[in-house]
Amino acid sequence: MSAMLPETMTAIGIKTPGGPEVLVPETRPVPMPGKGEILVKVAAAGVNRPDILQRKGGYPPPKGASDIPGLEISGEIVAMGEGVTRFKITDRVCALVPGGGYADYCTVHETNALPIPDGLTLVEAAGIPETFFTVWTNVFDRGALKPHETLLVHGGTSGIGTTAIMLAKAFGSRVIITAGSDEKCQATIKIGADKAINYRTQDFVEEVLAFTDGVGANVILDMVGGAYITRNYGAAVRDGRIVQIAFQGGSKVEMDFVPLMMKRLTHTGSTLRPRSVEEKAVIAKALEAKVWPLLAQGQCKPIIHATFPLHEAVKAHQMMESGVHTGKIILIPP
Amino acid sequence: MSAMLPETMTAIGIKTPGGPEVLVPETRPVPMPGKGEILVKVAAAGVNRPDILQRKGGYPPPKGASDIPGLEISGEIVAMGEGVTRFKITDRVCALVPGGGYADYCTVHETNALPIPDGLTLVEAAGIPETFFTVWTNVFDRGALKPHETLLVHGGTSGIGTTAIMLAKAFGSRVIITAGSDEKCQATIKIGADKAINYRTQDFVEEVLAFTDGVGANVILDMVGGAYITRNYGAAVRDGRIVQIAFQGGSKVEMDFVPLMMKRLTHTGSTLRPRSVEEKAVIAKALEAKVWPLLAQGQCKPIIHATFPLHEAVKAHQMMESGVHTGKIILIPP
Repeated sequence: MSAMLPETMTAIGIKTPGGPEVLVPETRPVPMPGKGEILVKVAAAGVNRPDILQRKGGYPPPKGASDIPGLEISGEIVAMGEGVTRFKITDRVCALVPGGGYADYCTVHETNALPIPDGLTLVEAAGIPETFFTVWTNVFDRGALKPHETLLVHGGTSGIGTTAIMLAKAFGSRVIITAGSDEKCQATIKIGADKAINYRTQDFVEEVLAFTDGVGANVILDMVGGAYITRNYGAAVRDGRIVQIAFQGGSKVEMDFVPLMMKRLTHTGSTLRPRSVEEKAVIAKALEAKVWPLLAQGQCKPIIHATFPLHEAVKAHQMMESGVHTGKIILIPP
Repeated sequence: MSAMLPETMTAIGIKTPGGPEVLVPETRPVPMPGKGEILVKVAAAGVNRPDILQRKGGYPPPKGASDIPGLEISGEIVAMGEGVTRFKITDRVCALVPGGGYADYCTVHETNALPIPDGLTLVEAAGIPETFFTVWTNVFDRGALKPHETLLVHGGTSGIGTTAIMLAKAFGSRVIITAGSDEKCQATIKIGADKAINYRTQDFVEEVLAFTDGVGANVILDMVGGAYITRNYGAAVRDGRIVQIAFQGGSKVEMDFVPLMMKRLTHTGSTLRPRSVEEKAVIAKALEAKVWPLLAQGQCKPIIHATFPLHEAVKAHQMMESGVHTGKIILIPP
């Protein structure tokens, strides 16, 4: 480690499980990069829904991860552990981190970091990892979305939603989203959605079938669960794939599984955070090969809704919970 | 069509939906092979569980299929429609048919027929198509079972069960089955199962986890459904695949889907009969390339439990419903 680094830093701790107000600035030791790890001076840190679950006490950090919230960062490398081969000090990176992003400094394994895509600011780059890793592994790996197929995304204005719209469009697919207001629907059309359904006033199963000439969606990315699960089975085409990445509407449901068999559906799901460094490295490699060129060419671009100073993390969480945002909310350390 | 062929034949009709006794011999016209189809003089016809559902009125034949039950046959080609290229009259084949197997004659598209594997009798060959097509497309295609992985099969003594045991073992996987008696468990061990669980006296989730050092099964082939679905999620390894091919225990369940996401499970399923001729042809090709050599080398062999004359179809159904069989039940026209 460099002698120039401070011994302590400011980080946002969770005082006790609860509302946004439990997020408080604390003084913590600057973390030491272990073998294969880099230490990043955080320029910007993305806010994500799992951070809110963690704040409420419902999503404890995986073993070995920091208790500080924050799953994605961008910044400059200021120190390196043994065995780092790809990067050097002063390189600028963005990274998926298992925790600890709401801080002045954060460590991460070098394989889970990527160079800042050409033409993107550090703030924009901080909004990439969590949603791009999530969308890639769920829509393209597990869901195996192909060009000319139709993707249905629930929650089209979330960070995941806007990323899914842009990536699926960039790869030549058709995208239908659901959102909770006509304004949100309009916002997703502007960034490329082919069809936006206001779930408060329209039935998404009927609308998806009507828009696809009765065929249905090939891949459905769902973070709602609950009563949506049966309806997803109804909106999916034969051989359709439904990928579950959260259960904001609950996970317990009375199901009839007949359509799963008769329509030969595939219902699967995953979570990102508990995966090993090696598993995340595989996703990082695919993103760098297939998606970084699109970002550099401007074919897709993270959508930043708002930024807040790190010490105003409370406001960032309040905004995310209010649901008014379209795109990412980012924290900026001083 | 050859002038030597009779105009009528005996077939087993379903007088009215009901018990085995509604199966009655009837005189029917010998069917005409259409474009790309062959006419087979049936030497033997397999009995399958969907035949029982059809007899009870719960599984109507797909559009265009014969109303006569019977999904698999073997025999000699006695006539051909236009455009048949692969086979010639007098060739002996076995075939997956969309219906009409319980009869003296049966038509089928040539791509859904395969040569009799070397060394097998016509009776043995008649017991191949339904279970081998089903196991191949569900365990190896949809379930993507790999060598050294563990397959759990519910109903290990059924035609599907015994076929799954033999094929999975031939491809180097480990096989666990469930069955309803110690005698049935013993029978499956004899044909290669590594572990047999008596579901009446043992908890299959606990037993599977114990046998796999706490890891679980990679692929689960399930025809039970109902309360087994949640238990399958419990017995599956992370990234496990569960393939649903029937719901003998019901399709409506109170589910908690959290394990699907947290364990990154894939829950899918399929039915064979409604598939197109082209889809079945793809499975036939894979079977001929990968499985026919194993049959010819004796590495796997259909297990025939009993044969009955065609006009005793009632007895064949009674036996299948009694559940005493291990392997296939076959009907033999005169």
